[in-house]
This record gives sequence, C-alpha cells and structure tokens, in this order.
Amino acid sequence: MIIMNTDATEEQINRVVEEIKKYGLRAEISRGAFRTIIGLIGDERKADIERLGGLPGVKETRMIETPYKLISREYNKASGPGEECAVIKVGDVEIGGDEPIYISGPCAVESREQVFRIAEGVKMAGAHILRGGVFKPRSSAHSWQGLGAESGDLAIEALTWLREAGDRYEMPVVTEVRGESQVDLIAEYVDILQIGSRNMYNQDLLVKAAQKGKPILYKRHFGAGAEEFLSFAEYIASEGNKNIILCERGIVPVGKGKSFTRYTLDLGVVPAIQKETYLPIIVDPSHAAGRRDLIFSMSCAGIAAGACGLMIEAHYNPSEALVDASQLITPEELKEIITVCQQIHKATRARANART
Amino acid sequence: MIIMNTDATEEQINRVVEEIKKYGLRAEISRGAFRTIIGLIGDERKADIERLGGLPGVKETRMIETPYKLISREYNKASGPGEECAVIKVGDVEIGGDEPIYISGPCAVESREQVFRIAEGVKMAGAHILRGGVFKPRSSAHSWQGLGAESGDLAIEALTWLREAGDRYEMPVVTEVRGESQVDLIAEYVDILQIGSRNMYNQDLLVKAAQKGKPILYKRHFGAGAEEFLSFAEYIASEGNKNIILCERGIVPVGKGKSFTRYTLDLGVVPAIQKETYLPIIVDPSHAAGRRDLIFSMSCAGIAAGACGLMIEAHYNPSEALVDASQLITPEELKEIITVCQQIHKATRARANART
Amino acid sequence: MIIMNTDATEEQINRVVEEIKKYGLRAEISRGAFRTIIGLIGDERKADIERLGGLPGVKETRMIETPYKLISREYNKASGPGEECAVIKVGDVEIGGDEPIYISGPCAVESREQVFRIAEGVKMAGAHILRGGVFKPRSSAHSWQGLGAESGDLAIEALTWLREAGDRYEMPVVTEVRGESQVDLIAEYVDILQIGSRNMYNQDLLVKAAQKGKPILYKRHFGAGAEEFLSFAEYIASEGNKNIILCERGIVPVGKGKSFTRYTLDLGVVPAIQKETYLPIIVDPSHAAGRRDLIFSMSCAGIAAGACGLMIEAHYNPSEALVDASQLITPEELKEIITVCQQIHKATRARANART
Amino acid sequence: MIIMNTDATEEQINRVVEEIKKYGLRAEISRGAFRTIIGLIGDERKADIERLGGLPGVKETRMIETPYKLISREYNKASGPGEECAVIKVGDVEIGGDEPIYISGPCAVESREQVFRIAEGVKMAGAHILRGGVFKPRSSAHSWQGLGAESGDLAIEALTWLREAGDRYEMPVVTEVRGESQVDLIAEYVDILQIGSRNMYNQDLLVKAAQKGKPILYKRHFGAGAEEFLSFAEYIASEGNKNIILCERGIVPVGKGKSFTRYTLDLGVVPAIQKETYLPIIVDPSHAAGRRDLIFSMSCAGIAAGACGLMIEAHYNPSEALVDASQLITPEELKEIITVCQQIHKATRARANART
Repeated sequence: MIIMNTDATEEQINRVVEEIKKYGLRAEISRGAFRTIIGLIGDERKADIERLGGLPGVKETRMIETPYKLISREYNKASGPGEECAVIKVGDVEIGGDEPIYISGPCAVESREQVFRIAEGVKMAGAHILRGGVFKPRSSAHSWQGLGAESGDLAIEALTWLREAGDRYEMPVVTEVRGESQVDLIAEYVDILQIGSRNMYNQDLLVKAAQKGKPILYKRHFGAGAEEFLSFAEYIASEGNKNIILCERGIVPVGKGKSFTRYTLDLGVVPAIQKETYLPIIVDPSHAAGRRDLIFSMSCAGIAAGACGLMIEAHYNPSEALVDASQLITPEELKEIITVCQQIHKATRARANART
Repeated sequence: MIIMNTDATEEQINRVVEEIKKYGLRAEISRGAFRTIIGLIGDERKADIERLGGLPGVKETRMIETPYKLISREYNKASGPGEECAVIKVGDVEIGGDEPIYISGPCAVESREQVFRIAEGVKMAGAHILRGGVFKPRSSAHSWQGLGAESGDLAIEALTWLREAGDRYEMPVVTEVRGESQVDLIAEYVDILQIGSRNMYNQDLLVKAAQKGKPILYKRHFGAGAEEFLSFAEYIASEGNKNIILCERGIVPVGKGKSFTRYTLDLGVVPAIQKETYLPIIVDPSHAAGRRDLIFSMSCAGIAAGACGLMIEAHYNPSEALVDASQLITPEELKEIITVCQQIHKATRARANART
Repeated sequence: MIIMNTDATEEQINRVVEEIKKYGLRAEISRGAFRTIIGLIGDERKADIERLGGLPGVKETRMIETPYKLISREYNKASGPGEECAVIKVGDVEIGGDEPIYISGPCAVESREQVFRIAEGVKMAGAHILRGGVFKPRSSAHSWQGLGAESGDLAIEALTWLREAGDRYEMPVVTEVRGESQVDLIAEYVDILQIGSRNMYNQDLLVKAAQKGKPILYKRHFGAGAEEFLSFAEYIASEGNKNIILCERGIVPVGKGKSFTRYTLDLGVVPAIQKETYLPIIVDPSHAAGRRDLIFSMSCAGIAAGACGLMIEAHYNPSEALVDASQLITPEELKEIITVCQQIHKATRARANART
Repeated sequence: MIIMNTDATEEQINRVVEEIKKYGLRAEISRGAFRTIIGLIGDERKADIERLGGLPGVKETRMIETPYKLISREYNKASGPGEECAVIKVGDVEIGGDEPIYISGPCAVESREQVFRIAEGVKMAGAHILRGGVFKPRSSAHSWQGLGAESGDLAIEALTWLREAGDRYEMPVVTEVRGESQVDLIAEYVDILQIGSRNMYNQDLLVKAAQKGKPILYKRHFGAGAEEFLSFAEYIASEGNKNIILCERGIVPVGKGKSFTRYTLDLGVVPAIQKETYLPIIVDPSHAAGRRDLIFSMSCAGIAAGACGLMIEAHYNPSEALVDASQLITPEELKEIITVCQQIHKATRARANART
C-alpha cells in the first residue's frame, strides 16, 4: 500500500501506478478527502515496496502481507489443506506434538566423563534430547570458546562424546553451529543443528545449515522483533527445510538500572508466534534468567504460555562448570521442573490447544 | 564505590577521600596494579555519589546498595525479624497470601447497568476485586477520556456505581487515580488506589496517593527498568504506606517490525522482584497482550511465574465496549482462566514458595 | 484501514462496514486475491479504530492519519495558508526563529547568590534564557528534591531569586513544573513552564499547565517513541496553547553493558520532527550525556542536526553543585560551545532551512 | 569484585577467597556494616567472574576493568607510550587523521556502467573511498540479494567492476563480507573488508576477516550496547589486526508508534567511544535514516559529534536503484553535504581534538 503526500500531484500518482504495473500488479486508487492511497492488487511481494517508497510524492509505504509466507499459518491454510501444526520428528521424539519436550545437558562439553554423567542425570530427570556446546559463542574474545577452539582433534572428540552419550542414554543430540565452517563437521555427529541467538541474522549460516536437511533449532536474537525473527526463519524454509524449531531465549532488557534477569524473556510471543506460524516454539529459561534461582519459575511460565518444550542447561556440580556456572541447575532440580511442568501442561491443554 | 582513572594523582585521590569523610563515611583505598578504587564504608546513601563522580580524576562511580531500602527484602531481614512477605488485606481479601487473587471488571465504567452486569459476571467467574476506570489515560487527546472527563457530576456518579457494585457483589473496588486533583475524591469511594503505568514516575501523585493510607496498586512504566520500578515504589513507602501491590503490565517491544503483542510482558521480574522486595506483585495480561486471543496463555504464564494475582479486563459483550475493545474477554472466559490458573498455582506452590 | 482475516466471512465483512457507517464514514471494500481490506473514507479519527479491531474476522487495523492533527505540519498546510513554522516569542527572545537560542543556568536553585552568579556567567557566555530547578524530580526518594521540597517559604524564595536574576540579566526564565499543585505558583514567577521527561505522559499536568497560556517547554520521555511524543504534545495544543517548545533529551540505551552516556540522544528526530510538526525543537545534551566531557560534542551535533536551540546546565564550580554535578559545565565552557555552534548554524542554514 | 549476600557465612566468604587465589589473584576482603565485598587484586580477567558469581553466598559480581583491553585507550596509555589515536592508512587515504573521510557509492553494484558512473559522481563530489555491495544482507529471503547471489561468475564480475572503478577514479574500495565463504574471494579485490551490522556478533567471520590483515570497517549491531560493540571488536584485534574502523549506523528505535527514522542514530557514542578506544569511528547516516530527506542533517550532526568520516550511499537516479532506493542521494547532494561538513569540521576542530 502506497500512501501519498496530501499535495501529491496527478503526475506523481500516475508514476506510482505505472511502476506498480511494471511488477505485474494492479493498482487500486483510493482518493480520500485528505490524500490518495494506492493499493497493490495481486501478490505485493512481487513489487519492491522500498523502491516505490522512494518515488516522488510518496509519504510512506506499508506491507499488508507478511514476508514469511512459507512458514505462515494463514498462507498455508489459504493455499489448501496444508500443514497446520508441524510436528518435527527426531528419532522417537516429537517436537510440536501432544507433549512438551525437554532438552538438557551441559552448557559446554568439557570431558567424556562430564558429558556422560550429565547425560545420565538429565535422562533420569525426564529429558528427551541431549544438548552440549562444543563451539561456544562468547561475549569476550578472552574467554574460553569451548573445546572446538582447542588445537588438534578436540572438536571431533567432543562431538563424539556427545554422540555416544546420546546413543548410550537414548536421546537425540543437538549442538550449536557457530560458523559456516563447522556445518559439515557437526552435521555428521548430531541430529539437530542449533543456530544461536547471535547468529539469527547470519543468512549465509542459515542457508548452509538448512541445506543439511536436518532439523534446525533456531534462536531469536536478543535485539530482534518477533516479526523479524520469522522473516529470517524464512531463509531456512526457502532452502526447502521446514524442520525448524523456534526458540525464545530473551531480549535485551529495557530501561535504566538493574533488570534482575540477564535478558527479558518474552513469553507473549510463544502463543502469538504459534498463531502466526505452524512451526513449534520452545523456551530457553537458562540464558534469559542468567541465574539459577529463577529457572524453576520461568520454566513453569514457559510451559504455561504454551511452549512446545524447554531447553535448560544442567550440571551435576554447577559451580565447577567452565561456562555459565551461575545459571546451571542440577539434574535433581531439572526433574522437579519437568514434574511440575507436566502438571501445568495437563491443566492448560484441557483447553483448546494454543497451536490451533 | 569510586573508580579512579589510571592516571589519577595522589592529590585527586585525597580529594575524593576528604569529600567522602564530609558525608560522615569512612573511605577504604584499594590500590591495584592498574588503578585505585575507593570504597565507602558506612551507609553509602548518605553520600551524593553522583557529585563524587564529578570530582577530578574519577572514572566512574557505582552504588553497591539498593536505593529502595524500605521495601527491600534483604534490608528488612538484616534489620531484625522484619516483614518477609507482606500480605495486604483489603476487606476479606488477602493479596500476597496463600492464594492468587483475581481483579476484574470493565476497562471503563460506562453506565450503572454495565458495571453491575459485569460485576456480577466476574464475581461468578471467581474474581475477588472489582476494577473499573473512571479517569482514563489515553494515547490520543482526541479519544474519550472516561466518564471522569464529562461535565457535571458524572465522575461522582461513576464512582458511586463502582462502589455500589462492589458492595452488592462483595468485592473491594479499585480505580485509577490519573492526576493529583482526583486523589481526594477517589479515595472516598474505593478501597485501593491504582497508579497507572504512565504515572509510575509521577512522584507528586505517588506521594499524595500514598498519604491516603489506602493500598496502592502500582504499575510499572513500559519504559522502566525493574530496579527503577522499585526505586519509585520507595516514594510510596517513604510516606509510611507499605501497602503496595506491584503490577507488571508489559514494557515497550524491542526490535523492528511487528511484536504481535502490544507490550512485552516481562514475567522474569515476577520471581525476581519477589526476591528483591517483600511486596506482592501481580500481572496484567490484558494491556500487555492488547488482543483477547492471548489472554488465556499469558494469564497462565503469569501465575506459573509466581504472581500473587492477575488483573484482567472483562465485558459481557467486548465489541460494544468504548475503550480497549480488542483486549476484553467475557466473564465466561475469565472463569476458565481462573479455573486453570488455580490448578497451575497448586502445581507450583507444592514447591518452596517463590516469595521465600 | 481494516485488514480482514483470509477466511473472514461475508457476514463479518458486512458487520465491519456497518459499524464504520455508524461513525458517519464511508467504507471502501478492496477484495484482493488473498484477503479483503476495508478503507475508511472520511476523517478516520471519528471512528474508534481499536474497537473495530475487536470485531470478529478482523486481523488488524492501521491508522493512516496522525493522532496529532493540531500540531501537524501537513494538516495545517492542507487546511489553508496556516502556520508553517511557529516562532514562539518570550520577551525579546524568539524560539524557532532564524537563530538558535541557548537556555542555561543551574540544575537546581540553591541560593540567591548562586543563581545570580550563574545567571551573570551564562548571560556573558551568550545564553538567552535562564533555567533553574526548584522542584526537582529525582530517581531516589532519599535524594534531595530541590528547595521546593523544603518546609516554609523556600519554594517562593527560590522562585523569586530566579525571577530577579532573570530580570537583572535580561533573560526570560524557565523552571520545571513537576506536579499539578505547583502550576499556579510557578506560573506567577516564570515565563516558560517546563514539563520534564518523566511527566511527558502526565496528561492532567499537561492540561493544567497548558491552560496558563504561557509557553511550555516539553521534554520527550526516555521511553517514548517519537510519534507518541507528538501525540501527547497534542494534549497541550488541545487546550488552545500552541506555544510548545519540544525538547529531545535522550532515550533509554539499548543493549547489554555500558552505554557510555546516561541516555541515548536521538538526533534523527530533530529534523524528522520538524518535518512532521511546525513546532520548534531544542536539544538537552546535559541529561543525555550525564558527563561533562561529552557536552561540547553533543551540543555541536544538536545544532548541526537543525535544533532550534540547546538547554545546557552550568555552574561556576561544578563539583560543588548539589544535583547533577557530573554533567555541569562552566560558563566559560558554555561560551565556547555557543561560539562554535553559531559557526555550525551558519554553515548549515546556508542550505534550505530544515524547518521548511 | 564479588558482592556477598548480607547473610553470607564465613565459610562462603572463605570459599570465594580460595577460588580467587586459584586464578593467581589476591583477594581483598572489605567488611562493611551491612555486607562483605571481595575485591580481586591483579588482572581480574584471569578469573572467570561468571563462575565466581555462581558460588554459594554470592549476591552479584561486577567487572571493574573492560573486556576490550587491546583496543582500550586507557590500557594502551598505561602500558607505555602506546598508540593514542590510530590513523589507518589505505593507499593515500588516512582514516582517523586530521580530516574526515567520505565513503560513498551505490548501495548495490548492479552493472559496470552503473558503478563507473556513480564512482565518477562521488569522486567529483569529494568522496575518498568507493563502496558498493555485492553480497547484500536482506531482511526478506525473497528480496534480491545482490549480484553475489546470482549464478555463474557474476560475483567476480561485480567485484572486478568495483575494483576497476576504484582504480579509475583513484579511490580505495570497500565491500561487505556477509559470510565466511566470501572472505578469500573479496579480499582479492578490495582494500577494506566491511563487516555489516547483522554480523557484528559473528565471531567466526570476524576472525576469518581479520586474518586477511586488511583494514576492517566494522559496524555496530542495531541491538548492541556500546560496550558490547567494543568487546566484539576485540575479536578482530585479538588476531593481531588493529586496523579497525568502527561505524555507528543506528540502533533499534525505542517506544511505541512511528520513529520517523529507520534506526536511531546514537551520536553520543561517537565522542564517547573515541575516549574509550584509540580506534577511529565513522557514521553511516543512510541506513540510520532510511529516507533521503534526513541525510543532510544527520551527516552534519555526525561530523559535528566528532566522527572521523561518513559512509553515504549515492546514485545518479535514486528511484532506479534496486536496493534501498528510498535512502539514496545524488552525487550533487553528496557534494553539498561534504562542503558543509568540512566547514563544521573546521569549526569544531579548533577546539581540542575530540580524540585526545
């Protein structure tokens, strides 16, 4: 839709109409008492709306349709009896199905013994999928960047431990792909590729990871609007890979002074995004809170909001961990969270499913 | 704490120490390899930290203690067997007690019949407290500002209807005090004075309302950090009124594009603030969502996060309402929310109470 | 404009059309391949768009016109040979005229001697208007709130000193009106009433201050969008008072970690707002920076962006000041700023004036 | 610095002290009336502060020193007669020297003729460096992604045109490296590698680009705090490449409603960052504004704030451009901007240089 200035000339209006026609669209002119508005009839994505906004006499332009048609619930419904509620299957685990799934494991893979011990713990606690970081994104260039940054074959060893621990305790495994050069290697070892928050906008990585065909666990950037998050998820879908598990992990806090949590968990997007797209969305309370004493409450809130699962970092001895020590919980605490969350899920799902 | 520049001179350091002493505090000098840091021993609030920050050679200053000592859980615990978890009693209703409380009613009071009909509906649904706006804060100067803005005695009539509906259906009543000039009038009619989000920083209103001695329902501003929220709540407590019910109602969305909710509900602050202060906190999903199809999920999430209650706007026929029509739910929907929330509350409180 | 769901029924569309007609508007139905959009022909502000958004089958609504028609440049131009570029005259000073104006003085009035000494200094430096705070809004309830908060007649004394210093050094004076109860008193003493950032949304204060008929210096809230700022300025204009001097003073910083400035000065709004409204806008670098070593650069940037003036806090001995010590500059530094800013203004105004 | 809870036990305090010693640091215990604070004496970056924050009895931790020591002005000064104000030389052009530099060219390279014609235009206008996008990062997966995304050798052709145009008109050239796989190719053709806003956090790309040894034009992410920006610039410096040109290009707007600019240009960081680091910083008004009628004012403001240069997109016929049409200016407009900016620079540099 093109909104003209009040003093736009006929010539300027005609120019806009002609440019619209060049894109193979029809222009509908609506002349109000105050100004003229020109609608695009047809698929407005065929036009370069931004370019039209640069034409003389144009005040502003607005998109009516979403930029993420491939993953849009409304588009899919309109285009036939399409997918209404994707269920992503990884081994025996269904993400987006009737039951929430729980992903847990160490923040960073540190040793074979550590991964196995934690894997056993979280499996006992009720987790379905094992996580563990090998290539760690860090805020400081001087912090430890995970075993993936060590010389020699430590990255491969770490991935092997993760894979074997997953096999041993019958959980699919997921790890973060931080850069393009890691995609091929990691895809050999894991079932789900994670794109971290800081890489949400990294379209080259999205495309390369998507092409592997494996499910993608895709985290919202902490500075991204919800619509932007979906627009970039479309990069994955555009490669023909619709096995996308969205993940809300908190946005930058607003306002002066302490926020008391590291990031602001935006739980309103959980039901809202599930109305916009047929993809499942999970919640990561660990990175949002940044402190272990809030993980329980924020996990419960995530499931109550309708999340399809949670991703929670765990360690048998949190203060020993090399990364994110302050936000880790023990497998025992994880078990308590899962128990309570299942009750919450039961209470809420009695009502019409949030995803329909 | 005063952090000096690396090239701060002895003279500059001495000047800072002397200024600290003038405030009746002791200065502790810590000379590192790289720079000197000066700690304030004693009650650092006696000093004007900002002024010290302006002295020559000072790089920056940082407060260690909170600016909200009167409502701080830690300060209260430290100063003796103080209040650890305030329960605010309004008639028979306890806010911050064992059970969540539900505040509901119309967005705006429109007629006697409307208030009574909605009051009856929300009472049947399980609400404990009746709300209704008489003086409405609006984004546009050209929107209807509530009956309080009409000529004649309509404000008094509207307040009377609200009072009588509360009495009739045995619910205490709350309404927003938008400006100082309304405090005396409103305090005659209602049990709880609401300070709205837009007035969070309005210290003159806070002080005047606090002096009435009635409980204050105090909403966080949508641009306020969590610490700032508590710092301004301290204005109320400073008047000797600690009957403060905090309320999270959403902050401004971050990032480009649509946010899908009107504001971003920050549910992490619910448990976090309850660790910082002994005051109860409730959640307002209606204004955060701005759309009725998300109220159920966001209500459940609020209670799951540990909120002491919810404030939800209701109407028997939402599309007829003069204000906030798109976010209103029916009393029937409210009943369903309360039913599910009680199950969630039961599931979560089995664990150690979030407020202790 | 009303955007319908793709599966909206004819009945739902008809309902929307009928509701639009009830507001005395005409509905224009545009049926696309994918969905129906309904335009409102006539003055869309007559309709309650939010209410229409709550009707069944409606996906979303969008306003085309601004909510601030009284102060809109486009509306004024469209409605005849109206005001295109307001010049607000206060005594001999013209705000919004050919030359930028400089407002300076102490952050807080502390004593007669202090006000006079600073007034003399800033006058010599080239300032046109004298500022000084009597009722200080503070972040902490435990900080000094200005002489206005002291018992006895200190508020009146402080206002008298400010008035007399202004008269003595031939500068109009401005002070902040923090609460409604101060409006009558302050209006007796000063030429311009300042509404501070924290009160931007305080519509009762806006209305009461506007009714005095004196120019209003109106600061943007640090959490307010630019459009919201103008929408609330409309409350002042709605009282028939269009002598509004807008002021940008910084918004809350975005992102993790230190921002290096207390607030983020949004200088893009300076030219942008002057295209939206015919009102003048000035810049306050002092509160945005929060540190004196950036005042020079941010002042220059403000004038270069096209601001109609600057408001800068000054003190002959910054580290002695009771409030905002870290951001105060001396009259000598002010003089240097004004000298350089005048050169910048000369360089930029050669080009077509930013306000036309 | 480790801040303990008020009720921390001696045992907990001792544990913290011991953990600090394990990092080779000394712990300084400061026992206040209210709580104990433990300072780290030595290089606190040796310790994992986050891990210490997870120990029992710890309330919170705070870093005193910056995480970006390699690019810190203060660290460099302290460690001897180091670099105080980097000047980055690219051919005959000095970035960070006495005069601001101007980078201009098309948003996207579209054809040989287009690049040459624009290169000639911006050279005539006074530009020093030629820019042109080959691999374009786009918000929508369905938008044109630049010639780099086309099949065949179009990427190489586009880079060749850019290189030849730079040689022909005697300007070094810069283009964006959007993904790791493009680094080697692009480094063969251009003089400066640009890391775009969306890749600010992409540490794998930063490292790979840095290793080429060529200057890096490094843009702040629109959701990044200023300190975070410098922390990630440290990734480049850690590879031994200190030829970093920082670039401010706007952050996400705060608040409801329209912002009138696409992003919020944060000009306060320009002088602030130049006090924190010895690296030069430039400003990109084009992407911040998103509309051409504000480019003049925002360019002037950038130079007035002390920027070492500007990057501005230009086109001989803006409405013909395939990308960013609404924000492009003509070479003639660029010439006017440069002329006025040089006058502003002259006016401001008379004063002590902002970078010292």
